[in-house]
Amino acid sequence: MVATVRSQKFIRGNNLRRKTLGEAGEERRRLLEAFHPDLMRYPIEFAFGDVLSRPGLDHKTRELITLALAIGGGVEREVKSHTRGFLNHGGTKKELVELLIQIAVYSGFPRMIAGTYGIIEVFEERGLFKPPKPLPAPKLKPKSKSKSKAGRAHK
Amino acid sequence: MVATVRSQKFIRGNNLRRKTLGEAGEERRRLLEAFHPDLMRYPIEFAFGDVLSRPGLDHKTRELITLALAIGGGVEREVKSHTRGFLNHGGTKKELVELLIQIAVYSGFPRMIAGTYGIIEVFEERGLFKPPKPLPAPKLKPKSKSKSKAGRAHK
Amino acid sequence: MVATVRSQKFIRGNNLRRKTLGEAGEERRRLLEAFHPDLMRYPIEFAFGDVLSRPGLDHKTRELITLALAIGGGVEREVKSHTRGFLNHGGTKKELVELLIQIAVYSGFPRMIAGTYGIIEVFEERGLFKPPKPLPAPKLKPKSKSKSKAGRAHK
Amino acid sequence: MVATVRSQKFIRGNNLRRKTLGEAGEERRRLLEAFHPDLMRYPIEFAFGDVLSRPGLDHKTRELITLALAIGGGVEREVKSHTRGFLNHGGTKKELVELLIQIAVYSGFPRMIAGTYGIIEVFEERGLFKPPKPLPAPKLKPKSKSKSKAGRAHK
Amino acid sequence: MVATVRSQKFIRGNNLRRKTLGEAGEERRRLLEAFHPDLMRYPIEFAFGDVLSRPGLDHKTRELITLALAIGGGVEREVKSHTRGFLNHGGTKKELVELLIQIAVYSGFPRMIAGTYGIIEVFEERGLFKPPKPLPAPKLKPKSKSKSKAGRAHK
Amino acid sequence: MVATVRSQKFIRGNNLRRKTLGEAGEERRRLLEAFHPDLMRYPIEFAFGDVLSRPGLDHKTRELITLALAIGGGVEREVKSHTRGFLNHGGTKKELVELLIQIAVYSGFPRMIAGTYGIIEVFEERGLFKPPKPLPAPKLKPKSKSKSKAGRAHK
Repeated sequence: MVATVRSQKFIRGNNLRRKTLGEAGEERRRLLEAFHPDLMRYPIEFAFGDVLSRPGLDHKTRELITLALAIGGGVEREVKSHTRGFLNHGGTKKELVELLIQIAVYSGFPRMIAGTYGIIEVFEERGLFKPPKPLPAPKLKPKSKSKSKAGRAHK
Repeated sequence: MVATVRSQKFIRGNNLRRKTLGEAGEERRRLLEAFHPDLMRYPIEFAFGDVLSRPGLDHKTRELITLALAIGGGVEREVKSHTRGFLNHGGTKKELVELLIQIAVYSGFPRMIAGTYGIIEVFEERGLFKPPKPLPAPKLKPKSKSKSKAGRAHK
Repeated sequence: MVATVRSQKFIRGNNLRRKTLGEAGEERRRLLEAFHPDLMRYPIEFAFGDVLSRPGLDHKTRELITLALAIGGGVEREVKSHTRGFLNHGGTKKELVELLIQIAVYSGFPRMIAGTYGIIEVFEERGLFKPPKPLPAPKLKPKSKSKSKAGRAHK
Repeated sequence: MVATVRSQKFIRGNNLRRKTLGEAGEERRRLLEAFHPDLMRYPIEFAFGDVLSRPGLDHKTRELITLALAIGGGVEREVKSHTRGFLNHGGTKKELVELLIQIAVYSGFPRMIAGTYGIIEVFEERGLFKPPKPLPAPKLKPKSKSKSKAGRAHK
Repeated sequence: MVATVRSQKFIRGNNLRRKTLGEAGEERRRLLEAFHPDLMRYPIEFAFGDVLSRPGLDHKTRELITLALAIGGGVEREVKSHTRGFLNHGGTKKELVELLIQIAVYSGFPRMIAGTYGIIEVFEERGLFKPPKPLPAPKLKPKSKSKSKAGRAHK
Repeated sequence: MVATVRSQKFIRGNNLRRKTLGEAGEERRRLLEAFHPDLMRYPIEFAFGDVLSRPGLDHKTRELITLALAIGGGVEREVKSHTRGFLNHGGTKKELVELLIQIAVYSGFPRMIAGTYGIIEVFEERGLFKPPKPLPAPKLKPKSKSKSKAGRAHK
């Protein structure tokens, strides 16, 4: 019976995860499962199937909490994931702005700023925001050093 | 005119802070103001008067966010403050339990445990929870060492 | 069948947890279960029953990792719990000293110091360490202020 | 009168921010204001206009503190911003090196290393540092995988 | 020759540490050395003897940095130690208040509050601050529960 | 005599560092030394020469601890460095997967996910892992916005 029980939890978790994280979540799932299946089993079964499926809080509120934890804790990748999740469960830009400003109070302005960058990327991704054209300021970065920097960034 | 403007913000912030943090908040305010008034001016004017008074999110949701940040970030003193705040704005024990379990997923079980201790203290404080009697286990702590430990704890 | 499956995982988790955390863990379990049973269900089923029971790493190594995370992450309560866990699974004082010194390198000396205080408390608790007598330095703390301070500490 | 009062604080804050963060700060301001103006109102009015304009500490010392918090807290984007700020208020490379080494002691070597990368980027940006040529080590990264990695990095 | 070399560094570090942390630092040193001498060897030789003795920053500025890291990083024990250190190297209360307010901006108000409590304890310890009398508010804490709570706090 | 003593420690540390971090570590060393030699002196002499050379724990266990601290503490650059270190000292993929899953329990799933990305990059780097082909999902990112985003990412 273990298999069936696990499957139900897995299916429930997978469905909720899909609805929450969308296509980008699927891409992550495929990558992690390719490395080792158990790396996705627990996020799907325990996080989404057990905890986030509990009825005590609605999904939008849960995503708001997760996003607060991600921005406040400086886990930038999750900021994008759960901005998607929050929007996918009915959250609004207005609420995101309020969250960001409140985080400035409780975790400091740098976390607010970093969170804003992540949230903006999701709005760009969805075609809901177009960043202003950069100022004609060619002095800021000399030559084509950006490439060497990018290459170095993850050593 | 500056004085008047400031007063309005201060009064608005102070009222919201009082409603949120209750008597323990007043005790803290008196202590910090006695040390230096500006240490309370910004929490009252900026945090409560400016940010937390913004209409975009209701007070209960804001306290839920703050509590998530406090538990996830390990700022234990604020766990108690904002458990009071969450309850004072209509939050329930059931929601707190959901928050704790969700924090286990996103910040790890140790943060959930630490948050639970803080929340329990507030429920005891209000006479809403009575801890179980300790087991008759005299071997755990030899003699009266606890005092020396307590004294050492903040050196 | 769910109940049975859950029971097996719960029993396995509970047994491992008991062996790891000892009497103090039981005291914590009783407190948290009195507040809400689910607060212990997931630590027992998921943390101990699922993850920590996996065969890929031995229990002593797992406790070493947990202790590193607790000291490095500043979750002081868990330092004590998992010092007990590490010793209960065969770890030694010598290894703890090495862990502490290595943490100074990777998380900074303050984390090493805080971790040392927690570890020392467990050694005192077991009668394996006796702190040196305090120096006759009565000037350090004026009068009996320590009580008011302690009272204030968790407001 | 509110508008005028706000303007003065805003103008003072904006001037100090401009002097501190320079052109890159302006670019950030334009982006965040385009997303929502309040995301810049508080950093300018409260952070720069209120707090950082207080006379009790000079601007160079304030930037040193901010940089310590950014490196110690792992907020990498702010490392670059406030390295610029520290240099713009008269700080020196020598002092930055001392700060980095001291951070190794109190926050661990990984934070020192991460901070060094951020500081170096600002020195490159200003043409004050030229990184050594990479060693002829073609085995390190096979083929052109870096692109797929970069694409994945922010999912 | 090793011994001599080590001694010089140790003596230099120990002297600076003594001047910085004072009597409370000696008490800590005796405790940690009693547990294992190497736990003090590196703080004295490397932290104080090597790094903090470097001439590039004066001792007062170094203590300001350390205090910023301690408050911003939430290592409460070190807040007290390095408040003493900052004052012992000529720092003032006014500068501490500015540091606290700036930390609110960059690490959030909860860190400012926690830091304030630690700093206040040192001022009390030195007889430089007397907390206001508690308000006559007997309802806040029912009966003598504080003892059981204190006992539970470090399980 | 100082010079000789230092050299021995430096040589021992440098050898261990080389064996641990490999070519990427050499690239980092060259960059940091070019900026300021002392930025590498302490990591080599103190971290590798003093602490990591202590006999009390084997190198593989030490790298496991460091990796736990890096993933749990969110210092992503070090995840890659010490994944290399762990593998270079005989660690296995199986143990890394166990470490990741255990970190989900104690530091939360987001840290597990971030750690997995870093570890995967090292496996790709060594030709030991090939990520699955991306799904044909062209809607996810409109046009060539990724460049502007990348450019913005480190402002």
